Amino acid sequence: MGNDRKKTYGICLLVSIVMNILFVIYIYNNNNKFGLDANGGLSWSLKAGGEAEAVAAISCSGHGRAYLDGSPEPVCECYDCYAGFDCSEFSSGCPADADSGDPIFLEPFWMQNAEDSAVVISGWHRMSYRYADYTMMSTELEKYIRKMHSIVGNAITQGRYLVFGIGSSQLLSAAVYALSSQNSSSPSNVLASIPFYPMYKTQTMLFNSETFKFEGDTNSWNLNNSTNNMDVVEFVTSPNNPDGELKTSVLGGKAIYDHAYFWPHFTPIPGPSDHDLMIFTLSKLTGHAGTRFGWAVIKDKDVYDKILNYISVADLGISKDTQLRVLKLLKVAVEDDGKPLFKFAYKTMRDRWDRLTTVFSKSTRFSLQQRHPLHCNFFNETRLPSPAYAWVKCEREEDEDCSAVLEAGKIKGRTGSTFSAKDRYVRLSLIKSQDDFELLLQRLSELTENGSAEIM
Amino acid sequence: MGNDRKKTYGICLLVSIVMNILFVIYIYNNNNKFGLDANGGLSWSLKAGGEAEAVAAISCSGHGRAYLDGSPEPVCECYDCYAGFDCSEFSSGCPADADSGDPIFLEPFWMQNAEDSAVVISGWHRMSYRYADYTMMSTELEKYIRKMHSIVGNAITQGRYLVFGIGSSQLLSAAVYALSSQNSSSPSNVLASIPFYPMYKTQTMLFNSETFKFEGDTNSWNLNNSTNNMDVVEFVTSPNNPDGELKTSVLGGKAIYDHAYFWPHFTPIPGPSDHDLMIFTLSKLTGHAGTRFGWAVIKDKDVYDKILNYISVADLGISKDTQLRVLKLLKVAVEDDGKPLFKFAYKTMRDRWDRLTTVFSKSTRFSLQQRHPLHCNFFNETRLPSPAYAWVKCEREEDEDCSAVLEAGKIKGRTGSTFSAKDRYVRLSLIKSQDDFELLLQRLSELTENGSAEIM
Repeated sequence: MGNDRKKTYGICLLVSIVMNILFVIYIYNNNNKFGLDANGGLSWSLKAGGEAEAVAAISCSGHGRAYLDGSPEPVCECYDCYAGFDCSEFSSGCPADADSGDPIFLEPFWMQNAEDSAVVISGWHRMSYRYADYTMMSTELEKYIRKMHSIVGNAITQGRYLVFGIGSSQLLSAAVYALSSQNSSSPSNVLASIPFYPMYKTQTMLFNSETFKFEGDTNSWNLNNSTNNMDVVEFVTSPNNPDGELKTSVLGGKAIYDHAYFWPHFTPIPGPSDHDLMIFTLSKLTGHAGTRFGWAVIKDKDVYDKILNYISVADLGISKDTQLRVLKLLKVAVEDDGKPLFKFAYKTMRDRWDRLTTVFSKSTRFSLQQRHPLHCNFFNETRLPSPAYAWVKCEREEDEDCSAVLEAGKIKGRTGSTFSAKDRYVRLSLIKSQDDFELLLQRLSELTENGSAEIM
Repeated sequence: MGNDRKKTYGICLLVSIVMNILFVIYIYNNNNKFGLDANGGLSWSLKAGGEAEAVAAISCSGHGRAYLDGSPEPVCECYDCYAGFDCSEFSSGCPADADSGDPIFLEPFWMQNAEDSAVVISGWHRMSYRYADYTMMSTELEKYIRKMHSIVGNAITQGRYLVFGIGSSQLLSAAVYALSSQNSSSPSNVLASIPFYPMYKTQTMLFNSETFKFEGDTNSWNLNNSTNNMDVVEFVTSPNNPDGELKTSVLGGKAIYDHAYFWPHFTPIPGPSDHDLMIFTLSKLTGHAGTRFGWAVIKDKDVYDKILNYISVADLGISKDTQLRVLKLLKVAVEDDGKPLFKFAYKTMRDRWDRLTTVFSKSTRFSLQQRHPLHCNFFNETRLPSPAYAWVKCEREEDEDCSAVLEAGKIKGRTGSTFSAKDRYVRLSLIKSQDDFELLLQRLSELTENGSAEIM
C-alpha cells in the first residue's frame, strides 16, 4: 500500500513536472512565434491589431466586407445586389453592374495573404514632408517597383527615372505638361486613338492650359494635318482601355504610353516595353484602386525633372502612409518571382473569359472584341489575352444604343461614346468581385437566350 | 525515512501542481490582456505588429528615428547635425536648419499616444475607388473633422460642404479653379498680400490656365485697378505664412481663406471663421505633413461641386489608407475635447517663443515680428500668438540680405523674396524637432552676442 502510494505520488509528480516543462515550452514558443520578448512582448500595436482582426472577423456571408472606418461603426458593407446586416439577402431583380473598373477580383488573393500584407502604421510614422534623402519618394519602394518590372519583363527600367504619382491619373496630366512645348506660340496638340480612356480628354479640358489642347482622335488628325505639324502629345494605351488591344503610336511623335493594363493577367507579355515615357498604376497590378498610387518610367532627364516638379508643386508628393502600404503589398507581390499573384490573377481572368465567350458564342445579336494569341514571356506559353473589359458590340442594325439594349436586360455597362466610339459598343467590366461577375454572366445568359429567341 | 520521503514527495507534488495552476493562470491572463481568444487570439496582424515594434525599439539616442520603410532596411535616420548608427554623434560646426515647415515638434505627442494612434491596415482594406456611399470620402472621417472644428471653435462647419484634398496644396489649385470665371473672355486675377506663401504663385503659374492668371500683390493691384475690375480670387492666409498675422480680405471680392495655421497652438482663436471657402491641413494641426491630407469647408453648392470634380478628375480622390490613418489620428486628437493635444502643442510653441524673444531682446541688429495679445476662446484666456515661424528683420541698413547674414552665423532660413517681400526679412521655422530648435537658439545666441559686440 505504502509502495503503491509512493508510486502514485511519483507518477503524479512526474506528470506535473512534465506539464510544467510543457507550459514553459509553450509560453516560450508562443512568445517567440509572435515576436514577444520575455516582458510580455508586443505592447502598443496590440490594440490596433485587435481592432483590425475584430473587423476582419465580421462575417458578411462572402457578399460584402466590413472595414475599420465604417460609418457610424464597422459593419458589413454589402456588394451590389446584396443586403441585410450580414449581406445574406440577395435582391433577385437586381441589375448586374459592370460599369466601374474596380479591380475587386484580386481581393481574395490579399485575404489569403493576410499575414504578410498587413502593415502597422505608428502614430509618428514619417511626419516630415521628405525622406532622409530629401526626396518625397521612398527609395525602398522604388527598388521593389524596379524588381517587379524585371520579374515580369514588361518594361525596361535600367537607366530610367521613376516618379510616383497619385494613381496613374495624376501622372497623365503631369506627363502632358512635361511633353508640351512650353515656349511655343501655339498650344501642343493632345491626341488619342478612338476608342480611348475618357480621362485624357477630361483632364486636359479641366486644366484648360495655354500650352496644350485636346484635339481628339489621332487618325482624324492625321488626315487633316500635314506631317509638318508634329507638335503632338499622343496617348498610347496598351493594352487599350476599353478593348484590350496592344497598341503603338499612330503619329510617331511624342507619346505617353499608358501601360495600366500591361500585366500578365490581362495580356501575354511579348517583351519589355522600352518607350520614353511609360505610366503604370498599382490599381490594375495588385487591385488596390483605392490606394491611389502610380508611377512613371522616364528616359529623358528633362522630362523627369518636369514631372517631378509638377507632382511637387501640385501636392508636395505622395502620402508616406500610402507609400509604406504599397511597399508592403509589393513585397508580397514579388514573392516567388510573382508566380502566386499572377497565377491567381490570370486564372481568375481566364476562367471569366472562358465562361463569357461560351455565353456570347450562342448569340448573333452581341459580339465580343477579337482576341489574338501571343507568346507570353512571363508564363512562357502562347495564350489569348484576358482583358479587363469586354468590348461588346450590338450587331443588329436597329440596336444603335447598345447600352440601352443591355440596360433593358438589367446590365449596366459604359456606353461607347464615353470612349469617343459609337454607342453601338458597350464596355463591360470583368474585374469586379466574383458576385458581380456571376450576376453579369447570369444576366448575359438571360439576354442572349432571349435575344436568340427573338431572332428565331 | 519513508515518512520523510513521502513528505518530500508530497511537497514537491504540491509545488509542482501550484506551478501548473500558476502557468495556466499566466497563459490565460496573458491571452486576455492582449485580446487573444482561447484559440491563440490575434493571428494575421501579429507579424506586422512585431515588425513595427521592432523598428520602434531601435534607439536613435533621441536624435533620429528608424522607420519600417527604411532603405535598405530600417536603421536610424538621424536629425540634422547628428550622425552615427545610433545618431549619437553631434557635428559641432553644423548649421541650424530652420528652413522647412516640417511640423516635427508634435512627434513626441504621438509617441506618447502610441497605442491609440497606431493603425493596422489589412491587405484587402478598401481596394475600391469608392466607399459604400459611392463617394470618395470617408463619412466617418468627415464627422471627426467637423467635431474637431466644433471643439476648437475655429470654423463654422454646420450647413457647409467638406471636400478632402492631397494636403491643402491641391485644394489651393482646386479653389482657384472653382472661383475663376470660366466663361469670361479674360482670365480671373489671382492675388495675395505680401508677404505671402509662394505656393499660390508657383501653382498658378505651373497650371498656366486660360481662366486665371497670377497678378501678384493685392495692395499694388488695388492702386492700379478700378473697383469695377473685381474679377479677382484673393488668397487670404490667416494666420499668415510667414509672419503669423491674422488677416482679412483686402479686395472684398472672392477669397480663399487659407487657415492652415488657424489652430490654438499658433494663435489665440478669437472666434469661428465663417468665410465662403476655407482651407485646412492636417500638417499643421497634428503635425503629419508626410500624410498629405487637407480639407476645404465650402458654403456654396456650385463651388463645392467644382472642387469635388477637380479632385476627382485630377486623381480619382484621396488614398483610402491615408483617410483611415487620418481618422485614427483625429480620434486621438479630439479626446478630452482636444485638451491633451493642444496643451502639448501650445506649451511647446510658447516655450520656444519665450526663449526666442529672450535671445532677440538682447539684439538691436535683428528684430522679430510684433505679436498682439488676443482672447482665445479655446483656452479661455487672453494670450500672445505663438506663430509657426519667426519673421526676422535685419535692422542695420547694410544688412539688405538678411539670410546671408544669418547664413554667415550658421543659420539657414527662408529669405524674404521667397514670400515676395524684401530680403531684409528671413523666415525661421520654429516647428521642427526639439534638437533643431535648440541648435537654432544656440546659433542665434552666438549671432546676437557677436552682433551686439560688433555694434559696440
